[in-house]
This record gives sequence, C-alpha cells and structure tokens, in this order.
Amino acid sequence: MTPASPTLSERTPSARRTLGRCRALVRPCLVTALDRLHPATRRLAVYACGLEEAGRAPAGGGGGKGVRPALALLAGEAVGGGAEAALPAAVATELLHTFSLIHDDILDEDEWRRHRPTVWKAFGTGPAVLAGDALFALAVETVSTSGAGDCAQALRLLCAALDGLMRGQAQDLQFEQRPWRGGDAVLPEEYRAMVGDKTGALFGGAVALGALLAGAGPGPVAAFGAAGRQLGLAFQIVDDVLGIWGDPRRTGKPVGSDLRRGKKTLPVVAVLAEGGAAARRLAGLLEAGELDDAGARAAAALLEEAGGRSLALAEGRLALTRAYRTLAEVPLVPRAWRELTALADFLVERAG
Amino acid sequence: MTPASPTLSERTPSARRTLGRCRALVRPCLVTALDRLHPATRRLAVYACGLEEAGRAPAGGGGGKGVRPALALLAGEAVGGGAEAALPAAVATELLHTFSLIHDDILDEDEWRRHRPTVWKAFGTGPAVLAGDALFALAVETVSTSGAGDCAQALRLLCAALDGLMRGQAQDLQFEQRPWRGGDAVLPEEYRAMVGDKTGALFGGAVALGALLAGAGPGPVAAFGAAGRQLGLAFQIVDDVLGIWGDPRRTGKPVGSDLRRGKKTLPVVAVLAEGGAAARRLAGLLEAGELDDAGARAAAALLEEAGGRSLALAEGRLALTRAYRTLAEVPLVPRAWRELTALADFLVERAG
Repeated sequence: MTPASPTLSERTPSARRTLGRCRALVRPCLVTALDRLHPATRRLAVYACGLEEAGRAPAGGGGGKGVRPALALLAGEAVGGGAEAALPAAVATELLHTFSLIHDDILDEDEWRRHRPTVWKAFGTGPAVLAGDALFALAVETVSTSGAGDCAQALRLLCAALDGLMRGQAQDLQFEQRPWRGGDAVLPEEYRAMVGDKTGALFGGAVALGALLAGAGPGPVAAFGAAGRQLGLAFQIVDDVLGIWGDPRRTGKPVGSDLRRGKKTLPVVAVLAEGGAAARRLAGLLEAGELDDAGARAAAALLEEAGGRSLALAEGRLALTRAYRTLAEVPLVPRAWRELTALADFLVERAG
Repeated sequence: MTPASPTLSERTPSARRTLGRCRALVRPCLVTALDRLHPATRRLAVYACGLEEAGRAPAGGGGGKGVRPALALLAGEAVGGGAEAALPAAVATELLHTFSLIHDDILDEDEWRRHRPTVWKAFGTGPAVLAGDALFALAVETVSTSGAGDCAQALRLLCAALDGLMRGQAQDLQFEQRPWRGGDAVLPEEYRAMVGDKTGALFGGAVALGALLAGAGPGPVAAFGAAGRQLGLAFQIVDDVLGIWGDPRRTGKPVGSDLRRGKKTLPVVAVLAEGGAAARRLAGLLEAGELDDAGARAAAALLEEAGGRSLALAEGRLALTRAYRTLAEVPLVPRAWRELTALADFLVERAG
C-alpha cells in the first residue's frame, strides 16, 4: 500500500529541503571520489561538478540540483535500507551524469551551462574528453567497490544505464540530420524512445541501483528501474519546455537555444506530427536554418499557439503518473515515499 | 619452473602465427559485441577496429596487430584454463584499447593512424567522442557478463587498468607543457611512471584478467599483472623508437612525427637527462618549436648520435627481463609459455 501524496502547497519547500539534505550527504563522498583523480583531471572534474570555479576560489554556483543522486538515496530509504547504503549509487550516478554532460556539450558544441562556460570551452576539447572519461571510470569503480551483495547485478544495472545513455545520444545526433516534415520526420514515439534512453536510462539506473544497494529484492529493483525511466522521460520533457520558454536567467542558456539550433524536442515534434496551419508555418520557419533572437521568439510563440507547450506538459504528467503506477504495488517506507513523490512532482511541475 | 625460450630465429614466424591464431579467435566475439551498439556508433567502432572502411566494402587493412587481446588469451592458456575462458578478457581489452586510441587521437589532434584518417578526422569530433564512450561501456559490460567466478575481482582489475590509463593520459598531457631543460624538465623516472600507467596498465590488466577468467589464483593473477605492466613499458619504449626512426610506410605516421610535435619520449628524455654537447644541441633544436621534415631528420640524427636509440632499446629489454623474472616462480603450461615469450620477444625486438 502506497501512502497518499502531500498537497501541492507542501511540495516545493519539501522538495528543496530534500535536495539540500541529499546534496549534503553526497557531497563529501563525491569530493573523496574526485580526490582519487590525477590533479590535472580533478581540476576539470571539480569545475564540472560545480564544486570550484576554474582558477578561482570555490564558489557556491555552478552545481546542478543533484536530482539524480537524490533519487538514488530516496529509493534506498524508500525500500527501508537507508540513505547510507545507497550512497555509492548516488555518487556513481552523479559521476555518470557529469561525464555525460561534459561529453554532450562537446557533441552539441554548447558553450554555456549553468551560467558558466562549458568544460571544453573553459579548458579545451582534449582535456574535456579526458575528464569525462575519468569520471566514467570513477563511476564504474564506485559501483564495483560498493560492497553490493550482488556485484554482478549492480553492474548489470550500471551497464544498462550506460547502454541507454549511449544509444540515446547516438539517436539524438541522428535526429539532427533528419527533416522537419515528410516521411523521414522524427515521430513523437521515436522521441519518447530516444529520451527514454538518453535521460530515462540514467534516472532508472539511479533509483534501481539505490534500491539494490539498500537491499531490495529483484521485484522492487525492477519496478524502480521502470518508474525511474518514466520519471526521466517526464523530467526531460519539462527540460525541453524550459529550453524553449524558460527564463534564460534561470536556465543558464540563451533564449530559445534549442529552437535556434533546430533540436527535435517534444513540443516541436508533437505539433509537427499533428499538422495544421500553425504547424506548417512553424516548419517553414525552422527549415529556413539557424534562427536569430527574433526568429526564436516568433517560433516559440507559434509553437505555443499550436499547443506545443500544453501537449508536452500533459505528456510529462502522463509519464509521471505511469511512474507512480509502476510502484503502486511495492511496499515502501511512508516518510521516504512522501519525500520521493514531493520531489518527483516538483520536477515535473517546475515549468508549471 | 619456467621452460626455456625458443631461439631467436624461431620467434618471428611463431609470433606472427600466434597473433593470427588469436585474432581469429577474438574477431567473431568482437563483431558480436559491436553488433549490440547503435548502428550509427557501430559504424565508427567497426572502422576504428579496422573491420570495415568508412562507407566502403570491408577491407583487410586498418586493424591493429591485436597484441593486447592475444596476450590476454595466452595468459589464460598459460595458467591452464584455455583461451576460451579468457575470451571476454581479450574482447574487453581490445574494446578498451580502441576506445583509448579514438579519444587519444582527439587529445593529440592526430590525423593519421594505421594509414587511414583517425576517427575524429573521418567522422567528426562529436561522433568520435561518443563512439569511444560506447566502446568503453561495452568493455565494462563484457567483463560484467563474463561469468567470472569473482565478479568483484574482475572489475577491480578492469578499474585498475582504467585508472592507470586515465592517469597516464593526464600525465602525458602535462608533460607537453613542460620545458626540455632545467629543473622542470621531465625525468626518465617520470616517463617510466607515466608509460607504466598509460600503456602498462592496460597490458597488465589484459594478462591479469585473462589469467583470472581462466581460473588462476590471486598469486599468479598478481604476477601476470606486474609482468604485463613491465611488458607494456617495454612495448611503449619500442613504439617511441619506431615513432622517431621507424619507416613511415610501416608505422602509418609521418616521418619523425613524435619529434615534430615535441613529445617527451624516452630516447629524448633519457639523452637530455644525461646532458653533454649533443644533448644541448638537441635541446636547442627542440626549443625552436615545431620541426619541419628536415628539422625532424636532423633531430633524429642528433638523438641517435647522443645514444638515445640504444639507451631506449636497452631499457626496453630490461623491462622485458623484469617481466620474465616476475613470472619465474609461477607454474605455467610449457607450450603456452613458449608462445607467450616468443610474442613478447618479438614485440620488444621489432625495432631491432
């Protein structure tokens, strides 16, 4: 029996508290792990994790929210094993996430992230490639020395997450080459499969590994994996919405950056698949090539008019509902489950 | 008791036969592993492994000699477990080696390898980063699904190899920034530590993992790891010599490419550390910046005159002797041991 969720007004402060509590637990372990790197690599890794500014004194900014490691810890608490046992899952997840951001920024030629130059922009492409590799290796090591009772199973979960991550990135790169219209256009179901891999696999891996290390059996671990994947899909859809309509001061990226670069995000793909006059005008705008500030604003307005924003947000909420349903039969610790759902609701409602 | 080595004249044909036999065993497993990648990534991975030309029909060229996987198989045979059991070690080693070549070529901005454009040059930096990552992930998966009795120990070996690889690469990048002379110059012992990591760790990991998967106990596994590290050092020293004095038609790289780019290789580092008139002239040449064809030839001649070539080759032979001594007390299958030493001798004598 799953206990009831908290009311809406309770969610945001609770989610922020949860994220803060989890960051405080993970941070010392993350620092200890990073200390094992070669000093030259460590410098970049620490910058990427937002623990220090490049060549400057440590600063508070730059770090992510720590969503994935928090989910790993909460999954460990929810199955009754406690956050301590799930810590290696949280650390490995954060390392893998940071690795994927560093390499992804090279793939996408992104120059800004979290209001700072990306790693390759700040330190050069070669050192950035190497820093990503080192974080990847450190994540594998973290799992393999976690003392998990079933080492092979822990690694299968890690490998499944990695496999999804890589497939999703390869698919995402291929999407960029495909047209906006016609038989070769990207379909919403293809988008869902890509994001289920690219973002969902790591969310699923984080919670499944957190549950496993905290002592959960195969059933709950598999349920957490599937639910995490759905939550990852919901999270990415919301990120897509923020990437188009979000406040650049909060997203840390230029206005409408995903639209300018012609990324195949759900709002666009869903609207173009449905067709109609606004969709045709939108496709015409996008086909004209890279957009400037005014073009990105026009495209965003057109996309909103065609229902892209509300369609995407509805899909995000649907994915979250699926995640909850997947876990409905798993017996969980009520307090931890409340924290987990408050955080998940917050993640999906943040683009409101 | 270790049986006697074959005579010099028997080594080369025997080594070539061994490499061919091992490639034939590894290749189908490698192809099966690569088939699990996303098609876009698989295309680059297959090119990097030399299994197919980019956009052309499969070609024979481009593949490496398969030294590392052969050593993994021979270690498995030498401890009496057979090549079959050691196959996952061989496949994982080849995947990791190929991953490191792809990313290393990005780090070093190398445009040619094995007579073909490097992966980033042929397909772009972003796709090359991703292909390397996918091979890395596939290597981890290969070890984690190898069915090793001691999964945690197999992963510790893999992680140690990865850790060495990353540290060595970071150190190598740092060496490039250091001067040729003075208190900050790279010392021969620093070079040895770097190469022991960068090349030795993967050689050591390959044979240790091969022995472990073939059923060897902790003592022989550790001995193989240490011996492999020494063999890797010897191999890299010979590679350094070939990178300076080797025939470009055989190395697949431009004449004296390491000298042109000012890489801190053992022949140079050893000669500069010993000092003398030729060393001072050499340092002057190198400090003048990137060398042209004539400059590279002059530097190579000066370096040979100063004894750089013979010093380096003697160090290589010393490392090989150390490798053999490390294994002297380990009981091994005579036939496999003969093959292993014939291959190791060949690898170290190839710059003769």
